[in-house]
This record gives sequence, C-alpha cells and structure tokens, in this order.
Amino acid sequence: MLFRSQDRIATEWPLTIKVNGEEFATLVCTPSDLLELTYGFLASEGWIRTSNDVSRVDVDEGTGFAHVELHRKNHMRSGDHSKRWIGSCCGKSRQFYLRSDVQTARTIMTSVPITVETCFQLMNALQRESADFEQTGGVHNAALCGSDGLFLVRSDIGRHNALDKLYGYCLLHRISMRDKVIAFSGRMSSEVVLKAAKMGAGILLSKSAPTDLALKLANDLNITTVGFIRGNRLNVYTHPERILDTAVMTKEEPL
Amino acid sequence: MLFRSQDRIATEWPLTIKVNGEEFATLVCTPSDLLELTYGFLASEGWIRTSNDVSRVDVDEGTGFAHVELHRKNHMRSGDHSKRWIGSCCGKSRQFYLRSDVQTARTIMTSVPITVETCFQLMNALQRESADFEQTGGVHNAALCGSDGLFLVRSDIGRHNALDKLYGYCLLHRISMRDKVIAFSGRMSSEVVLKAAKMGAGILLSKSAPTDLALKLANDLNITTVGFIRGNRLNVYTHPERILDTAVMTKEEPL
Repeated sequence: MLFRSQDRIATEWPLTIKVNGEEFATLVCTPSDLLELTYGFLASEGWIRTSNDVSRVDVDEGTGFAHVELHRKNHMRSGDHSKRWIGSCCGKSRQFYLRSDVQTARTIMTSVPITVETCFQLMNALQRESADFEQTGGVHNAALCGSDGLFLVRSDIGRHNALDKLYGYCLLHRISMRDKVIAFSGRMSSEVVLKAAKMGAGILLSKSAPTDLALKLANDLNITTVGFIRGNRLNVYTHPERILDTAVMTKEEPL
Repeated sequence: MLFRSQDRIATEWPLTIKVNGEEFATLVCTPSDLLELTYGFLASEGWIRTSNDVSRVDVDEGTGFAHVELHRKNHMRSGDHSKRWIGSCCGKSRQFYLRSDVQTARTIMTSVPITVETCFQLMNALQRESADFEQTGGVHNAALCGSDGLFLVRSDIGRHNALDKLYGYCLLHRISMRDKVIAFSGRMSSEVVLKAAKMGAGILLSKSAPTDLALKLANDLNITTVGFIRGNRLNVYTHPERILDTAVMTKEEPL
C-alpha cells in the first residue's frame, strides 16, 4: 500500500570550475569540501601538480563557481583534456586516453605491505564512518588509510569526486600518499586506478568489482588492487606481494 | 587463506567518437551494441534528434573509433558541450548545466499509469535478464519496458552508456518512447533523469537512490521516479499519479 513519508535524499549540486577566467568544467557533486575537490580535480586533470601551482582559488557557494588562478598560463591547450592521447612512459609503451593521464600517472615505487586482516579492518572502518552518509543510499565513500586505520574519509555522489576530495586534501596539506592505502566504496574502473597512480597510492581496496582495463593499468603501474571485500572474503587481483596472508605466515608456509 | 583462482572480469573498452572528422569524446564502455551507443550518445549530447540527422557511421572495433558524418555541419559550436548554459523552456524557468540539455530535454506529456505490482515485476525481470552480466559484478543494466514486460535490455560498465544504448536502439529502429518505462539498476542522478526526458519516457524505475537535483528535474519535467525497488518495498518520489496502488484500488479508497 502506498503512503506518504519523509525521506533523506542525497544532495546533488553543480560546481563550475573556471581556470584563469575560462570555464573548464561543471561537476555535479555533494557540496562539501569544495576547496579540496577543486584542487583534486585540477590535479587529476593534469592542470596542477602541487598547491604551489595555484595562485588563488575562490569558491563561491552562492553562485556555484570556483574561480581558479594558476601561476602558469596556458598550461594546457584548450580541448586537450578531452582528446585521446597515446603516450609512452616509464619505459613501457602504454595507451592512455587523456593527455592529462600521460602527464601525471606514475608507476608506484612503494612496496610497504599490509595484511589480509588489515584489508578487512579498513573496509569495515570505511563502512562504519560512512554510516551517516549511507542513510541517503546515494553516495560513494573514499578513505586515505595507513596500516593502522583511516586518516581521512570523504563522501560524494560522484565516485571520482570522493577520490578528488582526498587528493585535494593531500595537496593542500602537503601529505605524501607514499605508502598509503586507498579504501573505496565504488567499482575499480580504469579512471579510479589512474587516480590512485596520480596520487601515488600503492594499494587500492574496494568492496566492488574491477574492470579488465583497470587491472591491466594496475598491473603496469605497480598498484595492488583488492576487490569484493565483503564479510570474510576478498579478491587480490594485481601485485599480491603487498598483501600478507598471516594465516599462511604463522604456519611459515608462504604461498 | 589466499589462493589463486580464475575470475570473470567486466571488460572496459575505449571508443572514440569523431564527428565530421573532429574528435568529440572518448567513452570507456562495454564493447557491445556500439552503433546504438554512438547514436544514443550523440542524441544525449544534442548533436542529433533522429537517425535522419546522420549521413554515415562507421564503427571500427579494431582501432576503437566511431566515425560519424552528420548532414548538418557545425551543428554545435566547439566547446559548447562542456559549458554551463542557463535556459528557459516549456514556460518555466529552469537551469540546466549543458546547452545540449536545453536543446533536447522535453517535458513529458504522456500519462499512462502502471501498477505498483508492475514496478516490482519489471525490476525483477531486469535482474533476471541481467544475471549473465552480473557474474562480473561490474555492470549497470537498463531496460525499455511496457506495462507487460521488458522490450529491450542493455548493459554497460557505464551507467550512462547503458541508457544511451537503449536510446540509440530506439532512434535506429524508430521506436517511440512515449508511454514507455525505463528500468535501471543504477542511481537516479540528474543526468539519468535528463536522459529519460530526452528519450521521452514518463516513468523511471530504479533499484537505487535518487539525488535531490534529480527529483527537482523529474518534478519539473513531469517524470515519475520510483526508487529503492527491493523485495516488496519501493519509494515513489515524483508524480505518483502514474503509479496505481491496486491494494488500495480494490478497496475503493484511493489515497
């Protein structure tokens, strides 16, 4: 039987980013952490590498505009950000889809491992932290983690925005992502793996599935991908050397 | 304990769409129904309204390019598709984010209702039909439905692509979306509601949550949105006049 009731609904809000006076993109996002989102988005798109590249940002929540001034003008030719670009880097030939990926995706050099138990603990902690947001059922959550727990959790209706908010926070606070872990509620697509590579995180944990292209990129970029972390099961897809199985280790029979 | 095993992984594949010789966009998609995807994407972006607007499409699966020739040249000014655009249409003032939305999103004029039971049946049918794809855990499914069942199901790793494949099929086969229902596995964001409006479907069913902006647009565009269709529960968010509650009707006490 149908009846009327109140429900909490996730907010979707447009933020238009202007770079040096020119309109660059409109993101639909959850209106929180907008400065971080702006920095993270610009870094993901290859416009900036550090917060030093930015001379000024004004986020105007009233009109929904972020006005960004960069030190370097004409950093990218207009239109480049939407063009396919074939690049070669790190001694291997790879095809990326966007020029910005070629400029900023790096092969991960870190090798600090975590245990299988830590994978479960971090994903459970992410789900506890996101409980408030999950009431609306419509947001993705991403966390920056060490082996001892979550440093920072960010939520957004957009998968990529949640990751960009983490990225922007690290840029603004000059936090190195080296030896950090990213825990993510969403699917591991190629774009998510590329974002992890740009940030410099060596381990990507997800409660969802990967795509084949994501796994090829993760393999090339030396990123450990762990998916379908649910209950007491998980799948390690790439670079399993960073995931220690203590159940095996205690028996001194490493697989 | 970690052990090695084989797993099915969703394919993610890049398709670059060139319009009249110029690169327009690269979609990462599930490589199926690429002609439908190309037509649907061009229609969603406002480049075409009917298949008559297209003089030629060659989809080259080997290189991952779709070469599109349109009858009308310079249909859109370069760059317009990524600019925020404030428009007014249908006698109400609304703000859309992209010029293409202003050109193509229409207020739905149809009023054919369906019952609550049909909502459950259609969503269950979508989940049964998608069983094969769901093995990989990484795809979204969208179906074009009448009140008597599913006409067409399309899957893609990209939410929008699954809908664009439906849209493209309708354009290619000159099928009217009037009085049709769209059943969708993903969240109802503003872009999903705008796509339903462009297609002309009056009822949007989803097993997931909506966003607030999606509901504002659905209210304005006269689209019925039904979300969280799970088990024997559902939420009707907008324009409930198209959802008939037979449990109430049989008692002749309509709410």
